[in-house]
Amino acid sequence: MSERLDDSWFTEIFSSEGSAFSLKVTEKLHDVQSAYQHLEVYATETFGNLMLLDGCVMLTDRDNFLYHEMMAHPALFTHADPKRVVIIGGGDCGTLREVLKHSGVEKVTQIDIDEEVTKASERFFPALTASNGDPRAELLFEDGVKWVDAASEGSVDVIIIDSTDPVGPAEGLFKVDFLAKCHRLLREGGVMVQQSESPLYHSGSIIRELREDMKKAGFTSVATLPFPQPVYPSGWWSATLAGKGVDVNAFREDATGGADFALDYYSAGIHRGALSLPPFMHRLLKD
Amino acid sequence: MSERLDDSWFTEIFSSEGSAFSLKVTEKLHDVQSAYQHLEVYATETFGNLMLLDGCVMLTDRDNFLYHEMMAHPALFTHADPKRVVIIGGGDCGTLREVLKHSGVEKVTQIDIDEEVTKASERFFPALTASNGDPRAELLFEDGVKWVDAASEGSVDVIIIDSTDPVGPAEGLFKVDFLAKCHRLLREGGVMVQQSESPLYHSGSIIRELREDMKKAGFTSVATLPFPQPVYPSGWWSATLAGKGVDVNAFREDATGGADFALDYYSAGIHRGALSLPPFMHRLLKD
Repeated sequence: MSERLDDSWFTEIFSSEGSAFSLKVTEKLHDVQSAYQHLEVYATETFGNLMLLDGCVMLTDRDNFLYHEMMAHPALFTHADPKRVVIIGGGDCGTLREVLKHSGVEKVTQIDIDEEVTKASERFFPALTASNGDPRAELLFEDGVKWVDAASEGSVDVIIIDSTDPVGPAEGLFKVDFLAKCHRLLREGGVMVQQSESPLYHSGSIIRELREDMKKAGFTSVATLPFPQPVYPSGWWSATLAGKGVDVNAFREDATGGADFALDYYSAGIHRGALSLPPFMHRLLKD
Repeated sequence: MSERLDDSWFTEIFSSEGSAFSLKVTEKLHDVQSAYQHLEVYATETFGNLMLLDGCVMLTDRDNFLYHEMMAHPALFTHADPKRVVIIGGGDCGTLREVLKHSGVEKVTQIDIDEEVTKASERFFPALTASNGDPRAELLFEDGVKWVDAASEGSVDVIIIDSTDPVGPAEGLFKVDFLAKCHRLLREGGVMVQQSESPLYHSGSIIRELREDMKKAGFTSVATLPFPQPVYPSGWWSATLAGKGVDVNAFREDATGGADFALDYYSAGIHRGALSLPPFMHRLLKD
């Protein structure tokens, strides 16, 4: 009844959603079982290199700009003057690269539990790790939750949770106690942002619960920003921001034009547009 | 190396893009070879019913609201006072339904060459054809290009080209002579809109050429509005508007709030957001 994919295709099945996404691959470049997960890298026909963790698509050369720009710039242009940034997860270093484009940022600490991810990114996604030598960047390979526990209260301006899905290793990063720890870590006026799955698939579940949990954790405002992400389930993804005494539904729109770096997806107009949720999301989020 | 899809999945391969999208199906509901194309309808596990034409996904119950709302409302809220609307293609009647929600519209003519599409939609997507009995609706089953040729110059306010891809039967609908015929058919102040493929895959090709051809055909302004569409290639799609003496980068924003109908995706904020293209599109479109 339909076309069949032969062995030259990689397929990720999203079982609970009854959908699947496939990319045509030309070569396996890397395969390592780390202490935490199974990491593979493939060359694809049209998406450049592809990284998988436990069989799930993490990123491709072709479309990672969408995700990484939306994980970094909305939060950084929402905070009044971000100087100290922490990234939990994000081992491919794509989000780190975007954060370092902000000249006002004085220090960024990235804490990913799995050094193999960063090593693979250095080899197979060198554009993403190009800024790793920046003196403002600190790369740690340890448990992000423990790091947050040990860090000083009120010492950070922006926390970015650049994690895998809320099942498996990253599950704890979506729970209210962890969100409360992030709230404690932030200075007044601080902003956190978390990848928050698909607007089509998860508005009435993961996204709504995350927003409720962020409020329970003490955050005074939340905003979910949808954006396209072809290689993720449904091709549509989201980042959810939360503010500690700051309204994350507004941002330093004037600053975006003055930023002296070029972007591929993010702009003030895109940010403003992403803050306008479609009516079906408002209903499911019970705003 | 990856999960395999068994016979219970429908897969559409986008060969030139090296990607594929699959839905888990539970039952074949309909299979007919019309004079023009092979039409199938399946029940899926999570997307409701699915319609295919020549093996390509046309629509599903779950996510067609995105496409249909974006094909209708931006054009209708851009025109100052749309009374006479023509839809070329659109046999599933989803766009027609959205157009008929505008109480100011006096007559909508839908011209689809293949009556089998509308018959299948009446049986398997009854929500989309629910407004077909509206006295303002006229459904014709004939060649849309010939209909446009024969129609009186300057007799229409909005033309919606709700076609399949620009290969095969719909190829002519993307050519400059057809666009010039649409321009002739429109009154001064008229707006046309055409589905224009994927922002990720086609910004530097189909979308750019369509915009250039619209200008060659005499239109004074163009605007491409991206929107999510999970079941189409890349999960990201677009509609391109063109104006005859009217700026399609502006719209009757005040009217959207006053409209007395509920929508799932479209809103003034979504429309405004869609008018802000990401920087990479501006570069590829050579604006």
